[in-house]
Amino acid sequence: MPQWVVVQYGFRVTLGQFQFMPMKVHNFSAGPGILPAEVLQQAAEAAINFKGMGLSLLEISHRSKEYVAAIDEAMDVVRRLLHLSDDYAVVYLQGGASLQFSMVPFNLLRPEGYAAYVNSGVWATKATQEAEKLGKTKVIASSKDANFSYVPKGYDIPSDADYLHITSNNTIYGTQMKDFPQSPVPLVCDMSSDIFSRVFDPNQFGLIYAGAQKNMGPAGATLAIIRKDLLGKSGRNMPTMLNYAPHIENGSMYNTPSVFSVYVCMLTLQWLERNGGVPAAETRNRAKADLLYNEIDRNGLFKGTCATEDRSDMNATFVLTDESHAADFEKMLKDANISGLKGHRSVGGYRASIYNAMPIESVQVLVDVMKTFEKQRG
Amino acid sequence: MPQWVVVQYGFRVTLGQFQFMPMKVHNFSAGPGILPAEVLQQAAEAAINFKGMGLSLLEISHRSKEYVAAIDEAMDVVRRLLHLSDDYAVVYLQGGASLQFSMVPFNLLRPEGYAAYVNSGVWATKATQEAEKLGKTKVIASSKDANFSYVPKGYDIPSDADYLHITSNNTIYGTQMKDFPQSPVPLVCDMSSDIFSRVFDPNQFGLIYAGAQKNMGPAGATLAIIRKDLLGKSGRNMPTMLNYAPHIENGSMYNTPSVFSVYVCMLTLQWLERNGGVPAAETRNRAKADLLYNEIDRNGLFKGTCATEDRSDMNATFVLTDESHAADFEKMLKDANISGLKGHRSVGGYRASIYNAMPIESVQVLVDVMKTFEKQRG
Repeated sequence: MPQWVVVQYGFRVTLGQFQFMPMKVHNFSAGPGILPAEVLQQAAEAAINFKGMGLSLLEISHRSKEYVAAIDEAMDVVRRLLHLSDDYAVVYLQGGASLQFSMVPFNLLRPEGYAAYVNSGVWATKATQEAEKLGKTKVIASSKDANFSYVPKGYDIPSDADYLHITSNNTIYGTQMKDFPQSPVPLVCDMSSDIFSRVFDPNQFGLIYAGAQKNMGPAGATLAIIRKDLLGKSGRNMPTMLNYAPHIENGSMYNTPSVFSVYVCMLTLQWLERNGGVPAAETRNRAKADLLYNEIDRNGLFKGTCATEDRSDMNATFVLTDESHAADFEKMLKDANISGLKGHRSVGGYRASIYNAMPIESVQVLVDVMKTFEKQRG
Repeated sequence: MPQWVVVQYGFRVTLGQFQFMPMKVHNFSAGPGILPAEVLQQAAEAAINFKGMGLSLLEISHRSKEYVAAIDEAMDVVRRLLHLSDDYAVVYLQGGASLQFSMVPFNLLRPEGYAAYVNSGVWATKATQEAEKLGKTKVIASSKDANFSYVPKGYDIPSDADYLHITSNNTIYGTQMKDFPQSPVPLVCDMSSDIFSRVFDPNQFGLIYAGAQKNMGPAGATLAIIRKDLLGKSGRNMPTMLNYAPHIENGSMYNTPSVFSVYVCMLTLQWLERNGGVPAAETRNRAKADLLYNEIDRNGLFKGTCATEDRSDMNATFVLTDESHAADFEKMLKDANISGLKGHRSVGGYRASIYNAMPIESVQVLVDVMKTFEKQRG
């Protein structure tokens, strides 16, 4: 026993040194995105010895009492952070938002009904296309004509639709829905890239889903939050794996879950809870976004790519006013250990993803590079 | 740079000591199951610093060149180990075998056709039930009447079926199909619990799938091997995520893959390749199974639960001849740090899962306990 403890302690200390090393990389990746350093340490430890079992989390039964406690806590911490009532079920699934694009209509779209979609980006378009494979859809608003550089507003929501589908944050374009529509029909939201980043009232929603890998954990886990009274009404025959009900009934263990990914989600959300929960995250995220957008607006060498009022606090997109300086700017980014800033090919330029785990210090490093670049260009 | 190297070295050494520690747990879990100690070390390192990027594998883009190289290798090592021809595509998916139960009929079962199924256990039954949601099935053989204690044989395979579905190894019951049927129609096989454990001719199969978590990696990744000419013929409208084609066309990255799980599969399969590939694994697995089954047969306090000729080399199921001694035996197992030996509730008794990564030394520990138990019982 003592020998065990000593080795574990050494392991932790060694890993602990890592985050203070001078070579720190500033991770602006759009997703999978940055996770807290302490979570990564806990994850690495679990990959060697989970909960003192002497076995790795990668090789233990998902039915072990240690893991059942972890996945239960992964669902509970979601409830606590979002203040969910008992009207809602929380489940971890697989397949990412892409599989949710089909699960949502299988569960909520009646064969004789139709679903309303707001088209605010490529992912919203894909969600619509998958629903169209199963039934009727109506796109009630779109910003496609402007390359999705703004969030559609002021549309009428039909009261006879089976649901209204929206995307809260459009990672590619850097736009974010600041106010959610008052919907007469169940509101379904893809929150993959901004869940847990700001305070909202969950009772506005019928169903929320999110691929974990942008703001709440690693790839391989998908979160769904479902108002229970909406289930069982589509009347569809569907694959059991695409039916929310058995996943809910079995506590996210209808089949073997994505064990490690769900555990790292739990660690990440517990980290968020220790650090003030969603309200504090929102304050930090606003400060990071303000710091960066103020520089984009002030610095004449850069300009933002989307409507100011719709700018995302998670993904800031911008371009150089003179693209011929791109190589110089990118060398400076590289020298400053700034990683993952390349914009999506459909927008170009740069995209700084500043998810919950991104410290403001890293945003400051980027802003400093932008300022230095301006001085050098003089 | 030097500081970096020193820390990394310290990390590796510290982790390295782990596997030689006296408290070693013998992991007989049925799945998720045992993984090689060196793979767990590599996985833990990648969770801190992947490929020297200074970032965790849990927080980097799946489109980064470092990860694209890893997932490509994860597919390539499958090709090398199984000697797959170019007629076959290899993909990593999500959702486990349970989602394959639906993907198979979506892709291969014509609305006007039917599929043949061999019912050799609970998972085979579930596979059939999911296919029945989409079309017609015919169960051409079953061992359900004997609680699946043997593998059905000697059945006729209809030549007009769209495919024949079999399960190569039945984890719960400890049975294994020793010879695969000569099928006039495409042979589809759930190999979740014995893929890479023994040599077979892949050209016998139309489609092979496997949840990774039993013999090739952690939970969260699913392998599919598909003869390409079989695709595109079911004529079905299906969710894009359930269509093999886009996953194949996009190199397992139609959407964000289960990044970490696929990487650990790659590590596990590279470990297998370094250790002689599938032929050497088969030799080791046979030796482990012989050691254990010989003791089960020799020791009067135990008896096997399934037909001798169908006994699995992956999961050995057995019971006490006198159940009243269970508490004593289980205390001895615990004292020997033997974990995960409890049998599935539908069979009872004990199940020793002795997957590829299980060293024969751990099997010997179990056999020694069985011998000691016999001596103590006199």
